[in-house]
Amino acid sequence: MTTTTSNTDLGALRRPAAGLADRPAPQPAAESAPNPLSQLADHFSQVRALSTALCESLSPEDMVVQSMPDASPTKWHLAHTTWFFEAFILDKYQHAYKPYDARFGFLFNSYYNAIGDRHPRARRGMLTRPTAREVLAYRHAIDAAVRELLTTGDEEVLRAIAPLVEIGIHHEQQHQELLLTDIKHLLWQSPLSPAFRETPTIPASSGELGWLDVAGGVHEIGVPADAPAFAYDNESPRHRVYFEDFQIADRLVTNAEFAAFIEDGGYTRPDLWLDAGWSTVREHAWTAPLYWTRDGDRWLEYTLAGQHPIDPHAPVTHISFFEAEAYARWAKARLATEAEWETAAAQHGGDPTAGNLLAERTDHATFHPVAANSPAADPAAQSPGPMRQCFGDCWEWTRSDYAPYPGYQPPAGAIGEYNGKFMCGQFVLRGGSCATPRSHIRATYRNFFAPTARWQFSGIRLARNPA
Amino acid sequence: MTTTTSNTDLGALRRPAAGLADRPAPQPAAESAPNPLSQLADHFSQVRALSTALCESLSPEDMVVQSMPDASPTKWHLAHTTWFFEAFILDKYQHAYKPYDARFGFLFNSYYNAIGDRHPRARRGMLTRPTAREVLAYRHAIDAAVRELLTTGDEEVLRAIAPLVEIGIHHEQQHQELLLTDIKHLLWQSPLSPAFRETPTIPASSGELGWLDVAGGVHEIGVPADAPAFAYDNESPRHRVYFEDFQIADRLVTNAEFAAFIEDGGYTRPDLWLDAGWSTVREHAWTAPLYWTRDGDRWLEYTLAGQHPIDPHAPVTHISFFEAEAYARWAKARLATEAEWETAAAQHGGDPTAGNLLAERTDHATFHPVAANSPAADPAAQSPGPMRQCFGDCWEWTRSDYAPYPGYQPPAGAIGEYNGKFMCGQFVLRGGSCATPRSHIRATYRNFFAPTARWQFSGIRLARNPA
Amino acid sequence: MTTTTSNTDLGALRRPAAGLADRPAPQPAAESAPNPLSQLADHFSQVRALSTALCESLSPEDMVVQSMPDASPTKWHLAHTTWFFEAFILDKYQHAYKPYDARFGFLFNSYYNAIGDRHPRARRGMLTRPTAREVLAYRHAIDAAVRELLTTGDEEVLRAIAPLVEIGIHHEQQHQELLLTDIKHLLWQSPLSPAFRETPTIPASSGELGWLDVAGGVHEIGVPADAPAFAYDNESPRHRVYFEDFQIADRLVTNAEFAAFIEDGGYTRPDLWLDAGWSTVREHAWTAPLYWTRDGDRWLEYTLAGQHPIDPHAPVTHISFFEAEAYARWAKARLATEAEWETAAAQHGGDPTAGNLLAERTDHATFHPVAANSPAADPAAQSPGPMRQCFGDCWEWTRSDYAPYPGYQPPAGAIGEYNGKFMCGQFVLRGGSCATPRSHIRATYRNFFAPTARWQFSGIRLARNPA
Amino acid sequence: MTTTTSNTDLGALRRPAAGLADRPAPQPAAESAPNPLSQLADHFSQVRALSTALCESLSPEDMVVQSMPDASPTKWHLAHTTWFFEAFILDKYQHAYKPYDARFGFLFNSYYNAIGDRHPRARRGMLTRPTAREVLAYRHAIDAAVRELLTTGDEEVLRAIAPLVEIGIHHEQQHQELLLTDIKHLLWQSPLSPAFRETPTIPASSGELGWLDVAGGVHEIGVPADAPAFAYDNESPRHRVYFEDFQIADRLVTNAEFAAFIEDGGYTRPDLWLDAGWSTVREHAWTAPLYWTRDGDRWLEYTLAGQHPIDPHAPVTHISFFEAEAYARWAKARLATEAEWETAAAQHGGDPTAGNLLAERTDHATFHPVAANSPAADPAAQSPGPMRQCFGDCWEWTRSDYAPYPGYQPPAGAIGEYNGKFMCGQFVLRGGSCATPRSHIRATYRNFFAPTARWQFSGIRLARNPA
Repeated sequence: MTTTTSNTDLGALRRPAAGLADRPAPQPAAESAPNPLSQLADHFSQVRALSTALCESLSPEDMVVQSMPDASPTKWHLAHTTWFFEAFILDKYQHAYKPYDARFGFLFNSYYNAIGDRHPRARRGMLTRPTAREVLAYRHAIDAAVRELLTTGDEEVLRAIAPLVEIGIHHEQQHQELLLTDIKHLLWQSPLSPAFRETPTIPASSGELGWLDVAGGVHEIGVPADAPAFAYDNESPRHRVYFEDFQIADRLVTNAEFAAFIEDGGYTRPDLWLDAGWSTVREHAWTAPLYWTRDGDRWLEYTLAGQHPIDPHAPVTHISFFEAEAYARWAKARLATEAEWETAAAQHGGDPTAGNLLAERTDHATFHPVAANSPAADPAAQSPGPMRQCFGDCWEWTRSDYAPYPGYQPPAGAIGEYNGKFMCGQFVLRGGSCATPRSHIRATYRNFFAPTARWQFSGIRLARNPA
Repeated sequence: MTTTTSNTDLGALRRPAAGLADRPAPQPAAESAPNPLSQLADHFSQVRALSTALCESLSPEDMVVQSMPDASPTKWHLAHTTWFFEAFILDKYQHAYKPYDARFGFLFNSYYNAIGDRHPRARRGMLTRPTAREVLAYRHAIDAAVRELLTTGDEEVLRAIAPLVEIGIHHEQQHQELLLTDIKHLLWQSPLSPAFRETPTIPASSGELGWLDVAGGVHEIGVPADAPAFAYDNESPRHRVYFEDFQIADRLVTNAEFAAFIEDGGYTRPDLWLDAGWSTVREHAWTAPLYWTRDGDRWLEYTLAGQHPIDPHAPVTHISFFEAEAYARWAKARLATEAEWETAAAQHGGDPTAGNLLAERTDHATFHPVAANSPAADPAAQSPGPMRQCFGDCWEWTRSDYAPYPGYQPPAGAIGEYNGKFMCGQFVLRGGSCATPRSHIRATYRNFFAPTARWQFSGIRLARNPA
Repeated sequence: MTTTTSNTDLGALRRPAAGLADRPAPQPAAESAPNPLSQLADHFSQVRALSTALCESLSPEDMVVQSMPDASPTKWHLAHTTWFFEAFILDKYQHAYKPYDARFGFLFNSYYNAIGDRHPRARRGMLTRPTAREVLAYRHAIDAAVRELLTTGDEEVLRAIAPLVEIGIHHEQQHQELLLTDIKHLLWQSPLSPAFRETPTIPASSGELGWLDVAGGVHEIGVPADAPAFAYDNESPRHRVYFEDFQIADRLVTNAEFAAFIEDGGYTRPDLWLDAGWSTVREHAWTAPLYWTRDGDRWLEYTLAGQHPIDPHAPVTHISFFEAEAYARWAKARLATEAEWETAAAQHGGDPTAGNLLAERTDHATFHPVAANSPAADPAAQSPGPMRQCFGDCWEWTRSDYAPYPGYQPPAGAIGEYNGKFMCGQFVLRGGSCATPRSHIRATYRNFFAPTARWQFSGIRLARNPA
Repeated sequence: MTTTTSNTDLGALRRPAAGLADRPAPQPAAESAPNPLSQLADHFSQVRALSTALCESLSPEDMVVQSMPDASPTKWHLAHTTWFFEAFILDKYQHAYKPYDARFGFLFNSYYNAIGDRHPRARRGMLTRPTAREVLAYRHAIDAAVRELLTTGDEEVLRAIAPLVEIGIHHEQQHQELLLTDIKHLLWQSPLSPAFRETPTIPASSGELGWLDVAGGVHEIGVPADAPAFAYDNESPRHRVYFEDFQIADRLVTNAEFAAFIEDGGYTRPDLWLDAGWSTVREHAWTAPLYWTRDGDRWLEYTLAGQHPIDPHAPVTHISFFEAEAYARWAKARLATEAEWETAAAQHGGDPTAGNLLAERTDHATFHPVAANSPAADPAAQSPGPMRQCFGDCWEWTRSDYAPYPGYQPPAGAIGEYNGKFMCGQFVLRGGSCATPRSHIRATYRNFFAPTARWQFSGIRLARNPA
């Protein structure tokens, strides 16, 4: 959910969408109210501008290479999000629209499953053309056309496209996060360990880990089908769940705490791991989180600011579900279910915009998780709740596999082909990260990744049963 | 477990154990009451005898070969279950016990994770020695020793070993089912399509599919930690769940119904599948259930009685979770969660011993699922409930991933290393199959396999939300 | 070839055939003279009897399992060689012949390339049926029928089948060697390291390595197209080659010498290896020949007589081309080309039947290479030449890739599809081994394997340029 | 061999080097005469300038991406060849030389085998930094320093570096060819099929295929160890070979001829292929040469000028050894051995500089093979011999595996680690291609690739035995 005003104004928007950036493709309910369009146009411009601002320090070479099949090149992110606005808005609602380049649909569509319709994901890095410069020109052209349509379209068109623009904005924001985690993964391939952006370090303490009580019973989670604010379809319907009393940690697990796990043989003891986790540890010879390297008796960590010694107070990040789950077992605790997490966040998490999220001004962005007691980098951020770091810093692995909510119905139409299709073999993460745009996160938001994934800003919040 | 008398007599047995045969290794609570030992000894003898009776038609060649890493050779099953009694009972409770063959521990242990301790699973088929004949001699020797101990042991020993014998029996029964599904997979490798056992076909109708109502609300599922009867640790603790009103099918999906799904392009339409399921279909070029082959305009099915035309009324079997889930979507229904299934089975499923299960006398066994209205093959079987085929015929895929119950605690000791460690990446199946020994199944029993697994007798029961 | 009489008598037999057992399928020239048929029938019976005699110590379980795709089960060897006589002789020349079992053609044909025609090689170990006992019955029936035909056939038939019987004999002999190397590989999979056959060890010295001179110039190698004795098509035509003066070692490299190579870091120094060899060493983590294991400060070697300390005087065996080539570089020598080897063998190699080959009486067989100065195990063996171990003990890797001789023409007909088709990516070995039947080897014989292959009895003979 | 004067002047240069660009690393004999240095400096400047001229049409994005492990990014080629001059000349002979960037040695060294010393080949495309612009700056700086040294160095230094400069020039030329074949492979990944360089097509006929006689006997091939002109070590020593009379085709096989092979089922008939070739065809589903695609009833070919219909008269190119060998069998001919080829080229091939090679002025370059009777694109080119297309157009597969010449000795020192180490599993190609720099080729030049390689400009010249 974004800047609340605009969302409310857009009326009863219930759109299907995907948990991950590559998958959405929404056709919203038609009844939305197009009212404060200038606000929407401004928000559109701001979000679109952030994407290019994030690329300021990148060379054309940085923007084309793909470091692994899971990651996409920067250029592809910039083009794909643009194609989204062109295909779903201009192509349908701009009178007599002529495609910017007829071949871009094939190149930058991530959407349809039928074989041959789109360039294969794992080979996105082979597309040296169009160049980054040409993609930026494409962005400028489409942005101007969308703004033009928003300011000159008749009322019927505006009513139709307003919710689509909002979806496009959320889609863009998902890709902003992926752009950051993907470029981090790429730059790390270089023996030179180049920095993406130098950022000041704010020394702070994480404080002692405390526990917050949450009362059990029947609770409701998820988003009602007729809620006014934006949400993805996988957050619906709102429904009842039952759980017992439990406690949740008041901050994330720190680097120092995770280093103690390593020190205690965490990566060498099969009894701490799920069987599939232990196989993964051995297959990939994991001995620490992604981006950590040993340097004598200390650990270095590659961040978007380059290679540095780990901050013992900052939250551990870039860990898989398997590592989170093993750590929790070692710490004689467990991970929360997503129902528990969402209930705890509603009670103790505070304002979702108040965390270490991706600021709209990149000079306010940290690009890395920070210690629980750090002052918010962004002066615009609000006060968080007692469940510190609930929003921002790191996505928090839950013990819940990504499954449909009871009564979940995928939307009809083209999107119906795709919604929910990833509901197998993945685990839910909650709360957003330092790379999640500030206006993109909410307590009901369900992110999901395979239990082996480590290149996102993922971390650990412990839960436990009362003594 | 079913034969209630002996279990009750054994007292408050709560033992850790594994959902799948290869994983257990239980140290039971010490307080069990060893009383009706002659019953236990008889049960032991019966179950052990069934394992060898199942091998009657097999040559030494059939018993040594491993058809895939997931499957084990018959000989290995026979030896491993025997080693289980030797290692956990004789070696510990028989005074001055001398191992039958010191090398068998390494060869037939499936248990400890530390590398090098055991022969690798995927290479069990390389063990041509000891021969099948030598393994049978090993079985006879250990059986005699266990019976000797059961009849001559002092009271303290008997109190200790009675629950271990019962665990060994359940462990043996799990391997009986695997022995059958593994030998089926092996014999099918042969272009000769040999029969394991000729069985009479009982023509019968499956009848129309009907729907049974189950009322929603807070329900309890699972087994209390202090329940008297045997259950595996993953069935505990008994706990509350919430679900809404739903309906469950009164029989399994038939071959004819599944053939209509194929006819309708079921294996060629990505919109019907989870993304991971669709990838699997393409990777393995699936076009039908395992063991089906096209013969002109009809389907043949390889069964333990050889290759035959499919029985349209019999339940479809040897399908993956992905196929079950896709079929349900196609049929505008869904799979039940395990909480729904267990509640429905308790209300409508009837006597767990009443189904088409593996009879103790092999001449009563069908070795294949049969139509819903078939007379029970085994005259000893009871009347089932209105939720026909609830127990036996096919394991029923649920929509639930295999996860720990709230408050689940793995037991202490050596077993603690293993319990629950498979709780990732697998889905729960319920109800037993035609290859599940009759005294082995119960409503709370949680079986689990990867969503791609097809070589078990797995099938589909539909559920749906009320209109 | 050895039993010279019968071959000569068979006349101008020039048949196409394959260097390796699985590949032949010969249609001989029609003009051969069928004369001393009783000798041929005797030879047939002796060779066929040796195959079964080799299996005396094997259980049915040993005979069915396949340890790797390159190796075939014992049972398959026994059946395939039998099918060869049935398909090429009985089926064509026995009046109104009815196949022993119509399905055996599919199961035991290794011959035609068209997809679907035959059981895939890598899955031969899945064929548990027919059983070993049934395969032996098949052998007895076919043997009787062939002998019957040889004694009762009319002259025309006899003229036609005599060369086919001889080819079948050579084919059988190739499979005898593979049977031994394949069963060795299988038994070695077992942690029990069982012995195939206990054999007495004959302590002997290998003596100092000496060098024999061979004068350079234009030489002829290969077999003339109209030679009377049997030879495979790849040995023709006889043709001229040119090489310079060189020297060849008077015995094979010993275990002690090879251990010195290891001691000197042989497996850890990339400068000693071909690039592809070094990749192989790292990929498979080779640190010694196949079947060697370290035991404290000594090396153990698994032989067909079980696990034993290496004999320092015996030739090193079970090494790849890459290891042979690296050893030669380390020893400041090289491998001979096949033209050099054949010329040297003709000058210095002595009688091809005089070496440590597979004796017709298995109690005379060593089943392992022996030291250069050992007394011949078989009292029937002749005196070898100064180029000791030239025939028998180990196949000797040459530096020549397996390529067609100039003017080589594959024969017409069905066989033409296959001859020469393996002439890429393999290296030539010469001289036979302890597992090569005594009457099977000759100086022109070209064996060939991939440079990574180690499960044959392969060894090293050094060559060098004159100082 | 280059402009003969300078080579001669450099004196008795016999340096070890590699057949392929990534492998050299030469320490020349010290005695070379440094005389006409201005000529050498000019040649150095010309060759270095050609590398950058080849990149004129490329964007930074084109220059960084790696399309497959066998291919390197353009940027890597530009940097690696520069590092070569820096490491072997400036670093050793420039007084108090300070590396341009200390990290470049690690990034751009392709040389030492010891693990960890260099960036892994398959990950060269991950190096987005230094950028293309920075690499060009690096080139300019090194070029200036080398020229400076060539004009100001004292006599001893000049004597030492002259042969090194010449080796560096040849090394650069090898990389120019790879740069072209690698960028072609990359651009072809794009669905847009972009052109590297538009080139005019010169319509011409290939004429009838004729046969040239070569008399058999003992011949000499290779380069004497003391020859004055440059040659790689694998071309030595000059030695005697024997072959019989044969005939060689007077031009390459054309696209039309190869299309007839396809039409005749060439890719579907196993009898035409070597076994390993047939496996490759099936594994990769080959149905035509690389870069060919079917368009209705015609074939399109991707060239460096984009996608175009095939020219029926132009030579078929981008085929593997397997395809060349299969085509020859189909055409009832064969491939020549390298000894035959070299002898025929010496007798009938004409001037090595006279073919369709890579011209020094890129506006004279064809960047593609042309029909046998085409006028030479480069006005500077001489008249070829009757064995048309002998030099240039396509590398010609021979039937010879890449093996050491008799008496071949790898040079001492660091290079000794590498020379000859690729002499296994590859086949020799002769004659150069349209991408081979004009001054780089000679009759004794041995190129070599795996039999599966297709991305080089490789083609087919037939040979046959006299009737």
